Amino acid sequence: MTAPKTHPSLRLAPNVSDPSLYQAITGLDQDGQPLTLYAINERMLTVFLNGREVVTVMTVGDNARYLGLGFLLNQRMLEPGDTVHSVDYDPDDGTIMVRADLAGRADTGGKRRIHTSGCAVGTLFGGVMESLDDIRLDPAPRLRTTWLRGLGRAIDGLDSLHLKTGSIHRCVLCQEDRLLAYLEDVGRHNAIDALAGYMFLHGIDPKDKILYTTGRLTSEVVIKTVIMGVPILVSRGGFTALGVELAQKTDLTLIGRCRGRYFQALAGQHRLVFDAPPPREP
Amino acid sequence: MTAPKTHPSLRLAPNVSDPSLYQAITGLDQDGQPLTLYAINERMLTVFLNGREVVTVMTVGDNARYLGLGFLLNQRMLEPGDTVHSVDYDPDDGTIMVRADLAGRADTGGKRRIHTSGCAVGTLFGGVMESLDDIRLDPAPRLRTTWLRGLGRAIDGLDSLHLKTGSIHRCVLCQEDRLLAYLEDVGRHNAIDALAGYMFLHGIDPKDKILYTTGRLTSEVVIKTVIMGVPILVSRGGFTALGVELAQKTDLTLIGRCRGRYFQALAGQHRLVFDAPPPREP
Repeated sequence: MTAPKTHPSLRLAPNVSDPSLYQAITGLDQDGQPLTLYAINERMLTVFLNGREVVTVMTVGDNARYLGLGFLLNQRMLEPGDTVHSVDYDPDDGTIMVRADLAGRADTGGKRRIHTSGCAVGTLFGGVMESLDDIRLDPAPRLRTTWLRGLGRAIDGLDSLHLKTGSIHRCVLCQEDRLLAYLEDVGRHNAIDALAGYMFLHGIDPKDKILYTTGRLTSEVVIKTVIMGVPILVSRGGFTALGVELAQKTDLTLIGRCRGRYFQALAGQHRLVFDAPPPREP
Repeated sequence: MTAPKTHPSLRLAPNVSDPSLYQAITGLDQDGQPLTLYAINERMLTVFLNGREVVTVMTVGDNARYLGLGFLLNQRMLEPGDTVHSVDYDPDDGTIMVRADLAGRADTGGKRRIHTSGCAVGTLFGGVMESLDDIRLDPAPRLRTTWLRGLGRAIDGLDSLHLKTGSIHRCVLCQEDRLLAYLEDVGRHNAIDALAGYMFLHGIDPKDKILYTTGRLTSEVVIKTVIMGVPILVSRGGFTALGVELAQKTDLTLIGRCRGRYFQALAGQHRLVFDAPPPREP
């Protein structure tokens, strides 16, 4: 096995050599010739909060604890101030049991669900969208355009399940020009939730962080990022109008179609510092 | 306005000149220069079956009736044999009211939800995955590789919201080398559900049809296609292992990474007829 390609500041990354994450599958190509490729696994994971079943998601499953916890946080069924007593994962049953002191809040989310445009199923429990009304992200953090170019190159250089199997979304927590945590899942929805769980368990302050994803900037992804308290969201994908509207309303810096030196900033542009040199004249 | 680029056999296609489907949004590019682009709208649509609220999805909203009906069909809360009395759409409230005679079945789906890997939120109500056990698709239909190349070219030539706004999935119902119905939505999940509703309302036989999508072939998309009774599923995207497993189990012909002359067939290869000429020797 060759040494994994990683990044000095990276503390979390998928284990590309874990054979439980994908399968070799045989088939035929366009000329009827046999082919073998790797396909990513999807597993059911059912999340319980204080004994109550909340949701079953389809996931690669390599960050089940982070995913279960992050799902509850991003649905605001769990708040950053709550005390979590235990997070128990049973890989055989595909269950995550979260026990937490909800500080007197009734854990009665999940009555009504909004199914969103996110990859790998967005589900926003009732009230989450409304709960953005009282959120304005910290205007102070800056985003240098030189960091954006460096981050894109660094992410492309990482070992990834994406390179091994395709059909997977990537999500990276960054600070300035450094990669801190890298997650992949069949849906960017799960990858972002798992990142929220990772940040919660490790007490990582979101205020000066950048969330870099590969998927589209839909309302769902914007809502999750805002609830996580991360002020800058960057993607290689494009936008939906509602995603932009919610980003503007909460003062999230929203950058899409970020490829090479190119990008489009549709919200929170005041955080941008354009320090990257323009292209040379021919 | 130029004449829309369409296809002789196409009976349903997005109205790219409908200004209610997207918005012009201004921002900055990588050099700090102002830019204006179009972003697709996401709207909430709440589906009711016989007065009971079933789900709220985020959708572009241009095929709300088809989407509401198709969602219920693909969840098997509604069966093709059921009599639908009315499908009422209220664009102001964002509601679809479906009234149907469920032939004595209790309409008590939606108790338990599985959130899947589909774009724009898969939601499989309990039992749908298990219900595939009794389905084997008709082995008789054939798929000629020459059709695949023609379909890809024809689809690329269509006017689309995808070209106008990006961030949207495409889904096309085909028969042999002809395009019959073309839908786009923020999630391919919605586009496929809307196609199911369209086929139901117009009495279109799925047996000899091809479903051509742009998204990944996850378990969710395979399950919907099988429930629709369409024996051939083609995508430009890749696979998940569970998607392939379910296709093999139900004898769905599953073709991914279909681009130009290239594709990968991982299930139901027996329907393929390799009649496309191989590339010329250099």
